[in-house]
Amino acid sequence: MTIELLNTGLDTIWVVLTAAMILLMEGGFALLEAGFVRHKNNVNIIMKVFADITLGTLCFYVIGFGLMYGADMLGLIGTTGFTIKGDLSHLDFSISLETFWLFQAAFVIAVISIVSGAVAERINFRAYLLYIILMTALIYPIAGHWIWGGGWLAKLGMLDFAGSAVIHALGGFSALAAAMFIGPRKGKFTATGTSTIALPSNLPLASVGAFLLWFGWFGFNAGSTLSATDVRIGHIAIVTMLSAASGGAAALLYTLFRYNRSDAPSVINGSLAGLVGITAGCAFVSDQAAILIGAVSGLLMIAATNWLEAKRIDDPVGAFPVHAASGIWGTLAVGLFATDGGLFHGGGWQLLSVQALGLVVFCVWGFALTWVGLKLIQLIIPVRAKEEEEEIGLDISYHGIMAAYQEHEFINYEHEYPNIDQENHKK
Amino acid sequence: MTIELLNTGLDTIWVVLTAAMILLMEGGFALLEAGFVRHKNNVNIIMKVFADITLGTLCFYVIGFGLMYGADMLGLIGTTGFTIKGDLSHLDFSISLETFWLFQAAFVIAVISIVSGAVAERINFRAYLLYIILMTALIYPIAGHWIWGGGWLAKLGMLDFAGSAVIHALGGFSALAAAMFIGPRKGKFTATGTSTIALPSNLPLASVGAFLLWFGWFGFNAGSTLSATDVRIGHIAIVTMLSAASGGAAALLYTLFRYNRSDAPSVINGSLAGLVGITAGCAFVSDQAAILIGAVSGLLMIAATNWLEAKRIDDPVGAFPVHAASGIWGTLAVGLFATDGGLFHGGGWQLLSVQALGLVVFCVWGFALTWVGLKLIQLIIPVRAKEEEEEIGLDISYHGIMAAYQEHEFINYEHEYPNIDQENHKK
Amino acid sequence: MTIELLNTGLDTIWVVLTAAMILLMEGGFALLEAGFVRHKNNVNIIMKVFADITLGTLCFYVIGFGLMYGADMLGLIGTTGFTIKGDLSHLDFSISLETFWLFQAAFVIAVISIVSGAVAERINFRAYLLYIILMTALIYPIAGHWIWGGGWLAKLGMLDFAGSAVIHALGGFSALAAAMFIGPRKGKFTATGTSTIALPSNLPLASVGAFLLWFGWFGFNAGSTLSATDVRIGHIAIVTMLSAASGGAAALLYTLFRYNRSDAPSVINGSLAGLVGITAGCAFVSDQAAILIGAVSGLLMIAATNWLEAKRIDDPVGAFPVHAASGIWGTLAVGLFATDGGLFHGGGWQLLSVQALGLVVFCVWGFALTWVGLKLIQLIIPVRAKEEEEEIGLDISYHGIMAAYQEHEFINYEHEYPNIDQENHKK
Repeated sequence: MTIELLNTGLDTIWVVLTAAMILLMEGGFALLEAGFVRHKNNVNIIMKVFADITLGTLCFYVIGFGLMYGADMLGLIGTTGFTIKGDLSHLDFSISLETFWLFQAAFVIAVISIVSGAVAERINFRAYLLYIILMTALIYPIAGHWIWGGGWLAKLGMLDFAGSAVIHALGGFSALAAAMFIGPRKGKFTATGTSTIALPSNLPLASVGAFLLWFGWFGFNAGSTLSATDVRIGHIAIVTMLSAASGGAAALLYTLFRYNRSDAPSVINGSLAGLVGITAGCAFVSDQAAILIGAVSGLLMIAATNWLEAKRIDDPVGAFPVHAASGIWGTLAVGLFATDGGLFHGGGWQLLSVQALGLVVFCVWGFALTWVGLKLIQLIIPVRAKEEEEEIGLDISYHGIMAAYQEHEFINYEHEYPNIDQENHKK
Repeated sequence: MTIELLNTGLDTIWVVLTAAMILLMEGGFALLEAGFVRHKNNVNIIMKVFADITLGTLCFYVIGFGLMYGADMLGLIGTTGFTIKGDLSHLDFSISLETFWLFQAAFVIAVISIVSGAVAERINFRAYLLYIILMTALIYPIAGHWIWGGGWLAKLGMLDFAGSAVIHALGGFSALAAAMFIGPRKGKFTATGTSTIALPSNLPLASVGAFLLWFGWFGFNAGSTLSATDVRIGHIAIVTMLSAASGGAAALLYTLFRYNRSDAPSVINGSLAGLVGITAGCAFVSDQAAILIGAVSGLLMIAATNWLEAKRIDDPVGAFPVHAASGIWGTLAVGLFATDGGLFHGGGWQLLSVQALGLVVFCVWGFALTWVGLKLIQLIIPVRAKEEEEEIGLDISYHGIMAAYQEHEFINYEHEYPNIDQENHKK
Repeated sequence: MTIELLNTGLDTIWVVLTAAMILLMEGGFALLEAGFVRHKNNVNIIMKVFADITLGTLCFYVIGFGLMYGADMLGLIGTTGFTIKGDLSHLDFSISLETFWLFQAAFVIAVISIVSGAVAERINFRAYLLYIILMTALIYPIAGHWIWGGGWLAKLGMLDFAGSAVIHALGGFSALAAAMFIGPRKGKFTATGTSTIALPSNLPLASVGAFLLWFGWFGFNAGSTLSATDVRIGHIAIVTMLSAASGGAAALLYTLFRYNRSDAPSVINGSLAGLVGITAGCAFVSDQAAILIGAVSGLLMIAATNWLEAKRIDDPVGAFPVHAASGIWGTLAVGLFATDGGLFHGGGWQLLSVQALGLVVFCVWGFALTWVGLKLIQLIIPVRAKEEEEEIGLDISYHGIMAAYQEHEFINYEHEYPNIDQENHKK
């Protein structure tokens, strides 16, 4: 046994374990979103997340990884590494390429899962499958190349440690584009201009999701070191915790004093907003800054939720408020609070400007490509579910599930599995 | 601090953490199965899993471990190591014996949990407790000795890295035997020959289970290296992910195109089938082979489900399709795709033959011992729940629970905890 | 790369990963408790746990950590280390102070979460927020200093490896004080002296919680080594498993033979009691002793539950039986079974006496400070929810949630987020 072998082993289990934690976040996304949407669409949203993982992993394997981490061309795109083959000698880690790939795959399916929430309860499932391919093979990997694959934003010095910008802001703006493209759910906004609210169908289930996300985030942020001997791991973990606590506390206290009740969805999303907000800066800012970043993230999330309502944009699970609003703030906060280069630490405007530039690029890229992508998909298949499909619920319409929570006993069906409810479906 | 101490520490935390992940899979089994069965049996199936863990751990401690990993006698059985005492000097790891034991205990309770699903909604709880003892003290440990304890199948060169054969095929055939022995649920098959379907009672809960299982599987497969410096860890993790994704994607797309809907239970079980399928070969096959193994696992699972229906065998949660069908395929796939010795890599028929032989042995062993075991248990206590117990549901019958999901307020009861519903029970 | 760097990295990821596991236990507490209480309070109890994590983390950061681990004054209190600043040179680990802090923060929010269950369904949410501050800033940290911060009990030689005494007995007696202070739920005990039972509203959800707790406990106990090269890790993990299994098995078999059914809440709480019981001694007792400790813990939990009922003390989720009863037993068991110094290993009465003394101190401290604290809070705000708030449920009263499980479609509300149900609230 040599020190080098030990070091490789240590880094390998660190990255594999944190990657597994990030993959468990998919369970978090699925359950959080299922708990937030109406009963009749609970299974559909979970199935969308299963599609994210299964198809997304395969698309990233075949195409996305190469575009993101392949040999750089002009700072714009990767050109090798499809199916993890070809010349990848520029990637030089203590861990194996395959271990690195697993970690990156966990990231890409997080991005697509952000969008899944914004289009909940009304997207055509087949259209969504096509969109998964676009996002995991093209939209995210190309943008990812610019910052993490050695592309032009990396060269400009943009800092986005674990992805407030390229994961959350990009994912959040893609979610916004998709939510606007597809329009609000039937009945969400009334003709007279008042809004209605779809009450969360299962808050305990949503909470299971939130706890899994919180757990996985330690993998997300601390694992992004890719090395167990990175001296920043303890710091990353603690600021992640402080920012999440601060975001949740801010939302809890704000809604308590403002509305005389602690609004449960706000508290849950406030904690998640705190986690999103610290994702860019977890390796760069102090713990005091982390507390501030988290608190602002939690409040911004509430403000962004109100803004969406006012603009009559329907984002059923709060994908934009949690991911885009906090992602933007978190990315800019690096420019303000980075102990090395931040404006408030005497670093001047340089870093902040680069952060802002990168943000604009990622937000526009996510929004525009998603819009164009959905336009193209619209040529093949309607992006929006049919009116009657939405009415009876996507669970029956797309998955043949009569109810997520089923109290029936046995149902007669005409033999072949799983033609359970063709009649229901045809209704 | 020396390199040897560091190495031992590194391997120890790797095995302890992955063992904890595998133990969390018990939560996965419990919730997956609870979500798939009818409301009135939700608590019962979770209690069965608690019995698996609690009694199974103790039986394996007292008897099973010694039979499996004790000093070999004739390649058939272990003879030392009961309560982890006695001469175990042939077990030579960097980790301690106790660490090794924990990992193996996590495995044995996975096997018994496979069976718990197949007998759902109709087995007598006390009879099941007796069966747990048989499985965790005798059936699995003896078979396990043959392949992992240095027994005769190991000497023949059979490869079963993390147990597609000895865990899943054996568990799946035991499940089949138990399901056949005990017969279908009342009302599952009608007199006129048509089948009925028991709709999953809580698919979101089943999904929680599936995500926990998926997470734990990284521990299951990658942890089976028992050493953090094993260079295969990254590869094992990635093929586990690819096969799961491929199994889920295959089931999702197949049911979408064949039945015009993505069947949720099939997608969930398809992913799990992909995980089962890669369990034997994760250290031996390429990533392309893993994608193929996963896809075939997902489709085989659906075919096996239809086969059971046609044969009028009632397996409420799909234990046989997921574990036995994919386990068989995964074990044979090693003989086909192993980069060292597989038929398609120029290794000839040798390995494939050994794999097939081992499979037959494990399937027959699991099926036969379970059948005989249940016959013996039948002499002591009826294996099947009484008709009225099944009718009112096993939750009330065996656990005094009036409903898994309870909306009542306070119930008066005659003092002593927890005589909640004696009347109900006596009904 | 040097051996020292590797060692630090190894210890760091061990502590960060186990801390994340302990934090996931908060999800466990939340879901376990939500599953045990009535529907109308499901969200409230989850929100209490969110408040535990968010506010508790911040209070411990600002005040608690310094009192607990700061430079010792007279063996009574820590005086430095607030916001992890100041002279902490007496803390000498291979890991960074921040990593150490994260692990300790995970502990403190476990303590407060124990109390959250005992006051379920009837505490005023704002009063509870104030109590969180008391517990996480003062009550636990000061007591913690005595045993883990180098205070007087540590100097006397008390052994409490991962906290059966200072976490569970203290938390459990605080829970008892709070439950007695606040009184039973309306309708729990009738005027004629008979008790009623509030059936668990969602046992599958409670089971999710239990599995997360069990998983996290491996982090709790084994992670308390704070070093991956501690040779006791394997042993700690295995006795944790054996005691949990034994506690669950004892409760399962006892209720089966005594009441003719395996009582599900008892089995769940029995396993948890086994985990609590072994928490003090996991590094000091043999595996056989662990099995005994677990079994006794499981049975004591049932006895303590009956005792509370007889005394007409209302502890809705069993916080006292699980944490205090098993915590006391587990702490004393160290004095009996410690292989080095235990009574049954020839160590005489010395250790047992110290354990008993420490126990009394922690139990009295927790009980008295909680009682006094609630008295003080009562001066500011009523500690108990209003009668009508309790009647309609704390979910509506404090969180504006009409139902944890919501089957409504859209609800009209008068614009501003989230003024969902002001009318309901004013009722």
